[in-house]
Amino acid sequence: MSPRGEALRIGVLASGRGSNLQAIIDAIARGTLPAQFAVVISDREDARALERARTHGAPAVFVNPKDYRDHNAYDAALLRVIEQHRVELVCLAGFMRILGAGFVRALAGRVMNIHPSLLPAFPGLAAQRQALDHGVRISGATVHFVDEGVDTGPIVVQDAVPVLPDDTEETLSARILEVEHRLYPAAIRLFAEGRLQISGRRVEIRTQRVDSSTVGREGGPTAN
Amino acid sequence: MSPRGEALRIGVLASGRGSNLQAIIDAIARGTLPAQFAVVISDREDARALERARTHGAPAVFVNPKDYRDHNAYDAALLRVIEQHRVELVCLAGFMRILGAGFVRALAGRVMNIHPSLLPAFPGLAAQRQALDHGVRISGATVHFVDEGVDTGPIVVQDAVPVLPDDTEETLSARILEVEHRLYPAAIRLFAEGRLQISGRRVEIRTQRVDSSTVGREGGPTAN
Repeated sequence: MSPRGEALRIGVLASGRGSNLQAIIDAIARGTLPAQFAVVISDREDARALERARTHGAPAVFVNPKDYRDHNAYDAALLRVIEQHRVELVCLAGFMRILGAGFVRALAGRVMNIHPSLLPAFPGLAAQRQALDHGVRISGATVHFVDEGVDTGPIVVQDAVPVLPDDTEETLSARILEVEHRLYPAAIRLFAEGRLQISGRRVEIRTQRVDSSTVGREGGPTAN
Repeated sequence: MSPRGEALRIGVLASGRGSNLQAIIDAIARGTLPAQFAVVISDREDARALERARTHGAPAVFVNPKDYRDHNAYDAALLRVIEQHRVELVCLAGFMRILGAGFVRALAGRVMNIHPSLLPAFPGLAAQRQALDHGVRISGATVHFVDEGVDTGPIVVQDAVPVLPDDTEETLSARILEVEHRLYPAAIRLFAEGRLQISGRRVEIRTQRVDSSTVGREGGPTAN
């Protein structure tokens, strides 16, 4: 809950089918995630994520890269939409564009991403393929705050999965996706409960359990 | 068992207290690892590993780096001891010297190392410190074949451990060490059973269970 007693306003950026978006929708519907959709944004008009957002009754906005002269102008347009909808936490969920330093700095500590590997191993594209090619026995998923690098920001939560001898990119991706669908709502919930503190490149998870109905994201229990 | 029906002859190289050596000794004593010590070698005269080897009745050899003019000459001396003792698999266990390309090539596919991280994350020294400084939530241990890089060779087995909020380098190292003590004997056993096949940078573990009393490391069941 926000300091105003309102559920955390999240903005989701997605390019694809939006399965992580759906996991967040489901967690909110189950009542396990004290958040609401301020807006869902896509760089692709036909992204299934936009359809899922509309079905859920959330504002769904297509921001067309072709309408902007360069990356910086596009990032600025995204920022305007995010600010218009009073987004408190931006969640990247399969958003296939690199966001520039200006975007990241404007929203410092308020942008999360989910990545299908145990970072710092296998950053960038096709992390599951990279893991298979490297021959690892363990991979997993990571939710991290976004900094100016590619998948280099402070880590919020991670979980591991085995890589099995007969795995293909598809079977490994499916196993990791199950973990992603648990992990992302859990990470957003920690943020909503005000339990995350970034210190350098480490994220401290405050162990103090707080009553989410009376607490702000800024700190400990408040009178509300 | 070797093609000759003899337990796999392993040579262990260790610089320190030799806790992984002890785990291997214990697995052999329990009868869960079909191997024997051809020789234990250290670059330090006072290494506890040498003492453990002698207690177990294994040949223990101190090869003094000061007796050799450079790294290559020292590596050559190690190779001579390894060959004299008819070592089939070299196991690095806290050996604090980088082995040169000549050494690695002479024993291609016959040198294993254990490393206290989920490689490719955190190669090199102080892997546990690196993991804490990076803020990961999951670390672990890796047994890999040694190639010419630092902790870059094909991965045999890995297992994960959680990194806890209050972990110090000591507590995380202790948790990883427990995994190491299970993992290294298991990896050596797979080698002894002839179940490991290196293909490029991947290690295939043959799923076919074979009777270790009638099988060579080179392949499937034999008439023996």
